[in-house]
Amino acid sequence: MMTTEIRLCVPLTTVGLRREEDVEDLGGADVHVSVRMLERGPASIESHVDEVLAVPDLLRIGMEAQAQGVDAMIVDCMGDPGVEAARELLDIPVFGPAQVAMHIAGMLGHRFCVVTVLERLHPLIEDLARRYGVDSIMARPRSVEIPVLEIDNDPDQLVGSFIQKAAAAVRDDEVDVIVFGCTGFYGMTEKIEQGLADMGLAGVPVIDPIPVSVEVVAGLLRQGICHSKHGFQTPPQKDRPGFELGN
Amino acid sequence: MMTTEIRLCVPLTTVGLRREEDVEDLGGADVHVSVRMLERGPASIESHVDEVLAVPDLLRIGMEAQAQGVDAMIVDCMGDPGVEAARELLDIPVFGPAQVAMHIAGMLGHRFCVVTVLERLHPLIEDLARRYGVDSIMARPRSVEIPVLEIDNDPDQLVGSFIQKAAAAVRDDEVDVIVFGCTGFYGMTEKIEQGLADMGLAGVPVIDPIPVSVEVVAGLLRQGICHSKHGFQTPPQKDRPGFELGN
Amino acid sequence: MMTTEIRLCVPLTTVGLRREEDVEDLGGADVHVSVRMLERGPASIESHVDEVLAVPDLLRIGMEAQAQGVDAMIVDCMGDPGVEAARELLDIPVFGPAQVAMHIAGMLGHRFCVVTVLERLHPLIEDLARRYGVDSIMARPRSVEIPVLEIDNDPDQLVGSFIQKAAAAVRDDEVDVIVFGCTGFYGMTEKIEQGLADMGLAGVPVIDPIPVSVEVVAGLLRQGICHSKHGFQTPPQKDRPGFELGN
Amino acid sequence: MMTTEIRLCVPLTTVGLRREEDVEDLGGADVHVSVRMLERGPASIESHVDEVLAVPDLLRIGMEAQAQGVDAMIVDCMGDPGVEAARELLDIPVFGPAQVAMHIAGMLGHRFCVVTVLERLHPLIEDLARRYGVDSIMARPRSVEIPVLEIDNDPDQLVGSFIQKAAAAVRDDEVDVIVFGCTGFYGMTEKIEQGLADMGLAGVPVIDPIPVSVEVVAGLLRQGICHSKHGFQTPPQKDRPGFELGN
Amino acid sequence: MMTTEIRLCVPLTTVGLRREEDVEDLGGADVHVSVRMLERGPASIESHVDEVLAVPDLLRIGMEAQAQGVDAMIVDCMGDPGVEAARELLDIPVFGPAQVAMHIAGMLGHRFCVVTVLERLHPLIEDLARRYGVDSIMARPRSVEIPVLEIDNDPDQLVGSFIQKAAAAVRDDEVDVIVFGCTGFYGMTEKIEQGLADMGLAGVPVIDPIPVSVEVVAGLLRQGICHSKHGFQTPPQKDRPGFELGN
Amino acid sequence: MMTTEIRLCVPLTTVGLRREEDVEDLGGADVHVSVRMLERGPASIESHVDEVLAVPDLLRIGMEAQAQGVDAMIVDCMGDPGVEAARELLDIPVFGPAQVAMHIAGMLGHRFCVVTVLERLHPLIEDLARRYGVDSIMARPRSVEIPVLEIDNDPDQLVGSFIQKAAAAVRDDEVDVIVFGCTGFYGMTEKIEQGLADMGLAGVPVIDPIPVSVEVVAGLLRQGICHSKHGFQTPPQKDRPGFELGN
Repeated sequence: MMTTEIRLCVPLTTVGLRREEDVEDLGGADVHVSVRMLERGPASIESHVDEVLAVPDLLRIGMEAQAQGVDAMIVDCMGDPGVEAARELLDIPVFGPAQVAMHIAGMLGHRFCVVTVLERLHPLIEDLARRYGVDSIMARPRSVEIPVLEIDNDPDQLVGSFIQKAAAAVRDDEVDVIVFGCTGFYGMTEKIEQGLADMGLAGVPVIDPIPVSVEVVAGLLRQGICHSKHGFQTPPQKDRPGFELGN
Repeated sequence: MMTTEIRLCVPLTTVGLRREEDVEDLGGADVHVSVRMLERGPASIESHVDEVLAVPDLLRIGMEAQAQGVDAMIVDCMGDPGVEAARELLDIPVFGPAQVAMHIAGMLGHRFCVVTVLERLHPLIEDLARRYGVDSIMARPRSVEIPVLEIDNDPDQLVGSFIQKAAAAVRDDEVDVIVFGCTGFYGMTEKIEQGLADMGLAGVPVIDPIPVSVEVVAGLLRQGICHSKHGFQTPPQKDRPGFELGN
Repeated sequence: MMTTEIRLCVPLTTVGLRREEDVEDLGGADVHVSVRMLERGPASIESHVDEVLAVPDLLRIGMEAQAQGVDAMIVDCMGDPGVEAARELLDIPVFGPAQVAMHIAGMLGHRFCVVTVLERLHPLIEDLARRYGVDSIMARPRSVEIPVLEIDNDPDQLVGSFIQKAAAAVRDDEVDVIVFGCTGFYGMTEKIEQGLADMGLAGVPVIDPIPVSVEVVAGLLRQGICHSKHGFQTPPQKDRPGFELGN
Repeated sequence: MMTTEIRLCVPLTTVGLRREEDVEDLGGADVHVSVRMLERGPASIESHVDEVLAVPDLLRIGMEAQAQGVDAMIVDCMGDPGVEAARELLDIPVFGPAQVAMHIAGMLGHRFCVVTVLERLHPLIEDLARRYGVDSIMARPRSVEIPVLEIDNDPDQLVGSFIQKAAAAVRDDEVDVIVFGCTGFYGMTEKIEQGLADMGLAGVPVIDPIPVSVEVVAGLLRQGICHSKHGFQTPPQKDRPGFELGN
Repeated sequence: MMTTEIRLCVPLTTVGLRREEDVEDLGGADVHVSVRMLERGPASIESHVDEVLAVPDLLRIGMEAQAQGVDAMIVDCMGDPGVEAARELLDIPVFGPAQVAMHIAGMLGHRFCVVTVLERLHPLIEDLARRYGVDSIMARPRSVEIPVLEIDNDPDQLVGSFIQKAAAAVRDDEVDVIVFGCTGFYGMTEKIEQGLADMGLAGVPVIDPIPVSVEVVAGLLRQGICHSKHGFQTPPQKDRPGFELGN
Repeated sequence: MMTTEIRLCVPLTTVGLRREEDVEDLGGADVHVSVRMLERGPASIESHVDEVLAVPDLLRIGMEAQAQGVDAMIVDCMGDPGVEAARELLDIPVFGPAQVAMHIAGMLGHRFCVVTVLERLHPLIEDLARRYGVDSIMARPRSVEIPVLEIDNDPDQLVGSFIQKAAAAVRDDEVDVIVFGCTGFYGMTEKIEQGLADMGLAGVPVIDPIPVSVEVVAGLLRQGICHSKHGFQTPPQKDRPGFELGN
């Protein structure tokens, strides 16, 4: 059986935030997920500044993946930094978890809410929803107000806080699907669905963007589907002093 | 290896329009796709009348699938007839190919076009896009003006006509993704992508809704994700003379 | 004076939920309203499942009405079940009270709220508003949480609960028109307008969908206006085993 | 039998453009339509300037109608000039034909087109559609390029030109309902529907705004429904030198 | 140095509500702002009735300004009364402070709130936002419930009330820009920004529409830019008994 | 007289594409415009790849400007690259010409068209319009199909081609304002307005984004208005290996 390799590009420099052993088996028996982190860029992504500084090295990692024969790349951040540039630059499929997760949420229910780390990210999430054309089925974002690098400090408190925010979205904004607004919430879906059920809100799917993105990308690869290279055409060749793109 | 069974419910009565051997291997090694057709209902679906008459027997097939331990159901028609009712009635995941394909299209590019069989279906497609929240990224539908039951009459003419319509959408409406507007177009993607490339429009993904839906549903099953039962709650028990729902 | 006959098709099987004597005189001196109920279908409509099971017999009633020379049909349910199929199948005008009432609400003020029986129907109402193109002037639905078959149990409590919900919509969502979200609320407008006035919210029109629909349809009949048969064309002839449509 | 009187206020000064004998019998046996024209104001309405200069005298006519016990007022111009101010000033129902006709069009099909006199009015029509919340179901306006005061010069040419524009909207923009964009097109529906049918476009309803508005208003009066006085509250009393409003 | 003259037309008759000495130096060293008030019209503008009665004399003032060689006109009211008519009638640039301020707000942040005098004006503000195409970035309006003619009665209370409303918009609706909903709030920005900062909401720009409009118009004049005369074409010549437009 | 300095940051590395002598006198007598170009980054901006590679050095230039006491920064590219990040990072006002020009266009007419260099940039422009909330008043973009670095090759051909595209937008999409979709079109407005007038399309304002942005920013500076620092808060401090932000 041929194995498909999906490269997860983690657009930050804090070692240990994403461990390959947590994700390598996602996507079914014939899929292998490999992980690369940035050498240059932000410790975590919590602002436009962090996003834009992550992208140059992310493009380098994308080119490396393509050169290695990797089958597709997923950017491991719910801001989808660099996805559009990478889609232009590379010939292999490139996906962002926000775009995938928001559209998957749109398949599951009537209205979804993205619950993220910090309120300061709400406008970024709303901008993504507009760009991806799903703003009419997205309720306003909510957040737990815990910085990315403190997500692992107190997991129980994080889960508890998340459940409160998700329940408020279900009750007050009548959403029926919840989406993690940070890929650092990895692995929490079961506890949150259970917590919602304990509050009388059973049956609300909670989307963990990285596993769901890997599944979707693996399925699209099996069908030979790439992102639209007509819509993200290879950039014109030109000088770009300070950067080596091979383009 | 456990096998996942996805039941494809074909909401019409013309034997032979969907052959199980064409679809049973979709979705990866651990997935099996089985097919059921209606006993009562329309020969093909080309109107609201056809859709509504397909649904009662479709619900029976859904209940049968659930009783048999099938893992998920996909309705094999781009009008998504009965999907919402089946989502209420059943506890297993239920998906419609229009909702899946439109949202997948939204992941791949900037704007998509659904190319369907008959112009009379355009309002139904536009209604679905509004309901699913993707109308802002969908261009107006186009059609080849060939009835469903004549799709197989002249495959070359069908492909040629489809390519013309798809190319017009790419050029005039600046779409970068094409979606089959009828699940009867099954298997035509390669020829159409090639035809578009021959016209200078390479890199436009063409979405075949049934294979893509099977992949997506198989992936969601691996992640334990169902449609939102909070959003599609089981209907209240009541008398429904003439119908046996076990509810 | 010629009399115009409008057939009210009640898409459920609970005898007594709509009495002809309550509605026969609506629409002016030259209009007669007759009533038919389903022989097969749900006891009440509170879900997609109920809706889809009501439609086959509703189409039979529509064909019977047309054969009897009835001038127009109105479906007596705020989910507008089967309206689009009946518009295709019949040559006489067919209307749904949700579509009529929502657009009439749009003529009267700046923003309206549909107050219905159960929260589980909110997504259906929101879907209708999107389909009919009035979602930008509709506030989120509200509900009294009383099942359809219990509407008559305690009329005072129902009116009181409705007034609370309507007042909240006027104050919190700044709506200035209220629409009944269930045709079973028939006849309650006066008490509700009075109740709102007692709370300092005079001048908010409350739309009772069936009387308003009869008036609108009677007026359109006088002007010779049918729903668009170009937009709802007669379905292609084909086999539909199990159903007799004469088409 | 009590007679209901509806006052048609023609917001211009060209005597003969609206003759009472043409409209007095609209709305059924128990309705009488009376007509008043401006003493001060534009000869016809083809601009914002014309609209704003029509309104002061229109308000005087509205106050006179109310003092005379007239039951409702309709403004006889598809720009709906002064409707919002009259709704504030008067306690009797006030309606504009654009708002009524656009929402009636929304009840009849999937998408409508307003065909008007001059292209320079397109932005005014688009603004009205946004204000009334129906812009998502209105195609772009079209026009015959004939000034209001020349409408009666060559009726056959007008009808012919209108049919061409309407047919283009049906074919190119997939509309299925046509709305007169000028109340001066009064009485032309039959010829236009016939002309469309002759071109293979049968079944497209054509809305003549004044007759349809009279029917709708008469029906609402029978149900005791006024425009929302909560949404159009009586203006605060204050000095308005140069104007006598009794308010 | 040539001086540019911008005429501020105050569309009301209460002497003293706008003093030329307060505004004459706005817009930079080479700009002079002159003020004219109505001779005929409302004492203040708080309704559609007030707006429409202000416009005829406003057009006279506009023609006078143009005849005097004034370079541009700004209407001094956040309802933008008469702006569209004046844009048609005049060849000099005409601007309304609502249109300018809403679009400037759109340049500064993600979402803005208009805080106005009276809740009864909320629908007018929402209508303007739709007309100007910025409704998707405007939160619902808020108001201090103080009539225009009482704005100067208790400035401290007004500022305090405004800060409360603005803070609620920032916190509850996540707006990041505030716009004065009445040009009578002139000169209050500093106190309000300070008050918001004292509540922990620093960095929210507060837009005072008249100074900002003068700056924008002065800048456009320096670049030779007028409103679109193609979009607001000179009205056709015709009789308009009772009005002298020279057109 | 104090002089205000506005720093124009040209986010590319081709020396000579923007000469300081062309822009230094924009914005009135008390304004000075200074220019800086990138040391590292693309030769021109025609893709997402170009945009993201321009931003790191653009942020350095922004910090330098702030340290030098410059009053505001404008990014000299219609893709507005790095504007959001710079708004977070800096305390001085930061503006992008696309956001300014689109909103100014919204003040001038009913609908605008951005005419740009290459069709491949259309999705970027549409994304910006959605992000800035003006997509409902923007027609689809058009382009002259001339690469940025060839703009100066044949100015007459460029102007001629631009006029054709602009005229098509005015006639076919009924736009009444044109916006340059590339800041490299600097200085062409007069010829284009004349060309449109020669085709019978007089009175269509053409917006040259850099001069207009300088005027708007200079005016906002005079009023003490910055972009919303509440909406673009300073990023959290953290390690960003490879980048020196002083934050």
